[in-house]
Amino acid sequence: MKIAGKVTPDDLPRICPLVCRKTNPRYGSDYLRVVEVGNVRFGAGIPVVIAGPCAVESWEQTLELALIAKASGADMLRGGAFKPRTSPHDFQGLGLEGLKILRAAADKAGMPVVTEVIDVRLVETVAQYADMLQIGSRSMQNYPLLVEAGRVGKPVLLKRGMAASLCEWLGAAEYIAKEGNLEIVLCERGIKSGPSGEYSRFSLDLNVIPAVREYTFLPVIVDPSHATGVASMVEGASRGAIEFGCDGLIIEIATNRIDGPRPKCDADQAIDPAALRRIIRFINEREERGWEEMQAGRSASGGSSR
Amino acid sequence: MKIAGKVTPDDLPRICPLVCRKTNPRYGSDYLRVVEVGNVRFGAGIPVVIAGPCAVESWEQTLELALIAKASGADMLRGGAFKPRTSPHDFQGLGLEGLKILRAAADKAGMPVVTEVIDVRLVETVAQYADMLQIGSRSMQNYPLLVEAGRVGKPVLLKRGMAASLCEWLGAAEYIAKEGNLEIVLCERGIKSGPSGEYSRFSLDLNVIPAVREYTFLPVIVDPSHATGVASMVEGASRGAIEFGCDGLIIEIATNRIDGPRPKCDADQAIDPAALRRIIRFINEREERGWEEMQAGRSASGGSSR
Amino acid sequence: MKIAGKVTPDDLPRICPLVCRKTNPRYGSDYLRVVEVGNVRFGAGIPVVIAGPCAVESWEQTLELALIAKASGADMLRGGAFKPRTSPHDFQGLGLEGLKILRAAADKAGMPVVTEVIDVRLVETVAQYADMLQIGSRSMQNYPLLVEAGRVGKPVLLKRGMAASLCEWLGAAEYIAKEGNLEIVLCERGIKSGPSGEYSRFSLDLNVIPAVREYTFLPVIVDPSHATGVASMVEGASRGAIEFGCDGLIIEIATNRIDGPRPKCDADQAIDPAALRRIIRFINEREERGWEEMQAGRSASGGSSR
Amino acid sequence: MKIAGKVTPDDLPRICPLVCRKTNPRYGSDYLRVVEVGNVRFGAGIPVVIAGPCAVESWEQTLELALIAKASGADMLRGGAFKPRTSPHDFQGLGLEGLKILRAAADKAGMPVVTEVIDVRLVETVAQYADMLQIGSRSMQNYPLLVEAGRVGKPVLLKRGMAASLCEWLGAAEYIAKEGNLEIVLCERGIKSGPSGEYSRFSLDLNVIPAVREYTFLPVIVDPSHATGVASMVEGASRGAIEFGCDGLIIEIATNRIDGPRPKCDADQAIDPAALRRIIRFINEREERGWEEMQAGRSASGGSSR
Repeated sequence: MKIAGKVTPDDLPRICPLVCRKTNPRYGSDYLRVVEVGNVRFGAGIPVVIAGPCAVESWEQTLELALIAKASGADMLRGGAFKPRTSPHDFQGLGLEGLKILRAAADKAGMPVVTEVIDVRLVETVAQYADMLQIGSRSMQNYPLLVEAGRVGKPVLLKRGMAASLCEWLGAAEYIAKEGNLEIVLCERGIKSGPSGEYSRFSLDLNVIPAVREYTFLPVIVDPSHATGVASMVEGASRGAIEFGCDGLIIEIATNRIDGPRPKCDADQAIDPAALRRIIRFINEREERGWEEMQAGRSASGGSSR
Repeated sequence: MKIAGKVTPDDLPRICPLVCRKTNPRYGSDYLRVVEVGNVRFGAGIPVVIAGPCAVESWEQTLELALIAKASGADMLRGGAFKPRTSPHDFQGLGLEGLKILRAAADKAGMPVVTEVIDVRLVETVAQYADMLQIGSRSMQNYPLLVEAGRVGKPVLLKRGMAASLCEWLGAAEYIAKEGNLEIVLCERGIKSGPSGEYSRFSLDLNVIPAVREYTFLPVIVDPSHATGVASMVEGASRGAIEFGCDGLIIEIATNRIDGPRPKCDADQAIDPAALRRIIRFINEREERGWEEMQAGRSASGGSSR
Repeated sequence: MKIAGKVTPDDLPRICPLVCRKTNPRYGSDYLRVVEVGNVRFGAGIPVVIAGPCAVESWEQTLELALIAKASGADMLRGGAFKPRTSPHDFQGLGLEGLKILRAAADKAGMPVVTEVIDVRLVETVAQYADMLQIGSRSMQNYPLLVEAGRVGKPVLLKRGMAASLCEWLGAAEYIAKEGNLEIVLCERGIKSGPSGEYSRFSLDLNVIPAVREYTFLPVIVDPSHATGVASMVEGASRGAIEFGCDGLIIEIATNRIDGPRPKCDADQAIDPAALRRIIRFINEREERGWEEMQAGRSASGGSSR
Repeated sequence: MKIAGKVTPDDLPRICPLVCRKTNPRYGSDYLRVVEVGNVRFGAGIPVVIAGPCAVESWEQTLELALIAKASGADMLRGGAFKPRTSPHDFQGLGLEGLKILRAAADKAGMPVVTEVIDVRLVETVAQYADMLQIGSRSMQNYPLLVEAGRVGKPVLLKRGMAASLCEWLGAAEYIAKEGNLEIVLCERGIKSGPSGEYSRFSLDLNVIPAVREYTFLPVIVDPSHATGVASMVEGASRGAIEFGCDGLIIEIATNRIDGPRPKCDADQAIDPAALRRIIRFINEREERGWEEMQAGRSASGGSSR
């Protein structure tokens, strides 16, 4: 029974020769590409933390959260100016105004900033304001967008589609790489499954982290906010993702001041600043203790096969 | 446990008031919108058959298949000029040249034509050549593309995403409708599931057909080619989809002449002209016998609830 | 990356040599095993219809539905005496008393009867009352139960597990076959997927029907009641399943008399007698017209591969 | 559209009043039940490590691995005497002989032992040899087996079905509890999803850990061996599961001596003793540092809702 379009990881050298570990033997089997965004380095051994609001809603909100993120030890700011929403009647983001706010807040806080671009016509505009372009899950197979993102000369954060296979995900990365841009960071953010929706928004698929390591040299981070959709799950998911060996986290935060407005977008998955600080302290202490067992795990276990 | 972003069909009146049956009571509970593309009418009671090559590869191939489709009794031509492929190194379609071939072949055969648009910057161009715009599965949540497709003044064939919920699918339709365009035909084309890939490309989800009927008045057709990925499954899937009550089919065909080239794209799911003729004969005979039990099933069964 | 326990249809000759088409070349590529239950013949070309209540609740209810099933043209009675329920506090069936009612009702109506056995210790008891043993979805991998069902000398209806791969399903059939019993009928009844639960109970996976044909000679029927969980979907699903080429249907029915009790189990998926009659009329008319295009589809299409 | 059999976590008080947190207010919202197996305590704050071979293959192999497990710091022995395999032609375990070996090896090593029971007729026999009964994934909805396991007076390790919802899982636990046995430990072991099988055996669903905490007071452990199916993934998955807050791990080990046989069952997911030691050292160091941030995460975060 021949099935059209069927691919397996064995096809990766053909699907994505530029980002596939196997077809780049000069890099060696331990090579991890370091992707630099300002002074932030993905894949350099220490997990990167990106934090900020789901959506940019105002100058005050964004600045406050940027300063909190910085003070908490985050490395980079996140925030959405263009929000892809299930309904066109929901808040769609502040657009260009949001980009300007984000840029100014990032500068004030002294951090680089990543933001999502969903419209191929706006890649250049977004690239003027952002230090890194995010391709969201819904856009993972928006190939014209990937091509433009590959051309504009900024690093790209490529989120995994909600049901994407590893082959489809790395194929999407290849579209960016083919334009001459290897400054790509992958981001696992939860997949749809039978149980997803019963107690969490998606199923966080951490098994994909070591699989990414096996098949490509690109760094990979995790979005525990979307992958759970539940604020009280984000801390555990963050620590768990770190222990699985990911290269960083991208986390949504919000303050819950009595007098403040509730976020207009995905409020139930944003954590408060104290939780962010605990996550970053966890990473720092992890760093101090060293990652020996993780290294050992990567090279030395390997089970009973001979 | 509050989960961010969780929606159910109960939220449809809020997500998509323009295409939701419930929020349009003037249409009545039996109303089905008829979407016209040239002389072809979706939702008018007789299933529409769209047939043609996966990708436009040459004038000869496209013309031959257009004439075969017409002679077999198909109502409309399909064919891809812009092909979204998992790898950027795979054949991406002939582009503008493909559009011109498709238009000319459709005119020669005397049928309207639908083709996919994947780049928001090319919506107007594609609309100049095509009678109906296809939004593919990978683009179902490409919202800028949906907005432009809603504005350009042509009917839209909106394929379901590979893992899209009904709410996300109708939310996508709402983006088109919000621009003033209600000439939308939905298309189920298989979803990803645990078993998908083992013996078929996707899992054809026919249960969604009556669910679409329940929640919206838009017509819905089925793509048995992508939903199975296996040529020998397409006939059964086509007949099965018709019996589930869909408003039409979109089918990939190819000739298997000894001297002809193998299709460059999804060859294993294209059926030969004889199979297409059997499917159309099945529909025609179905039409002659009438659809009484289907009508009865829609209104009169309803089980044991009181 | 070696994955423990991974199997594909290529492994079927090793997993299930007794029921695998490939390892039984003497049967020929068109061979379909006919499984006889009394005068009912599965796999003989004409789809078999099994109908009856979800659960046996009383003598009156069971007899009434058995007589209705028979009068409607059904071939065989179904009904549960032992009900596997998600909660132990839900109605678990009448047990032995239910078996006796079922046997008597089947005899009165003049039909063979199939009923589920969930306890390996009761296989012999159930076999004394039933003409065919049903192994339910939850029990598909209850191997001791399969072994006993294989030994007791009655035909077996083996439902697919809710997330079972084709390999796992045929592996389960092999457990029965290994005991010397090849009187096995497979039954697709819906699988779990991302969208299942949003608008239907499970995703009816009809693609598996031609795949079963490809890999085994055992007959396969469809349960449209559990696969949809929605009474108004059952008729369309039944007709669709027939057109996909299945060998029969197993359908839950209920009367909705004003004075009658609502079924204690899965009431929302039981259809009324009129709907059952329409389904059976559909099959009979289908039979009169012949199945030529289906035969053609099986052997002659096969797409563009050469 | 009413869907038969549809349940959500809101139904848990009805489905499983005995194990549901909400219907047992006397226990308080922080109550965790401690399940004792010999001197091993599940749910007492320190994660329990169970280790041993997939299947008992011989006295020498089992004793060697039991001693290694003990020396590595594991708390409890695991090993299968009755193996549920996809094919009846695969190694099915040593049966009673395996139980005796397991008991003797556990006694030699000075650890309690858990082993799977798959046949309801053998519950008492297995209970004579084992300190804890394992109900495997394939048996999660084998209700007669759950009832007997609830009656025999030994603690039960209840693995989650491969596609089980949380409601179905806790409903299964309720069958045991209803027999008067609340000594139940839950075990997440990976679910089927679209991507499962591409790069790992199942999708490890760690989001379910905090969900279990929310809805029940029963301890929950994780099986990283089956959930990944890849030996080199087990260490990361183990550390990640611990950080998600689970109460323990159950891990398959094997030696890879040059002169030793390859395990007959799931060899590709067994880790070597050095990897097990690293996992246990990780847990011990975790213990020394304390679990403050985890406690904080449980009670104090909770996001931006007010």
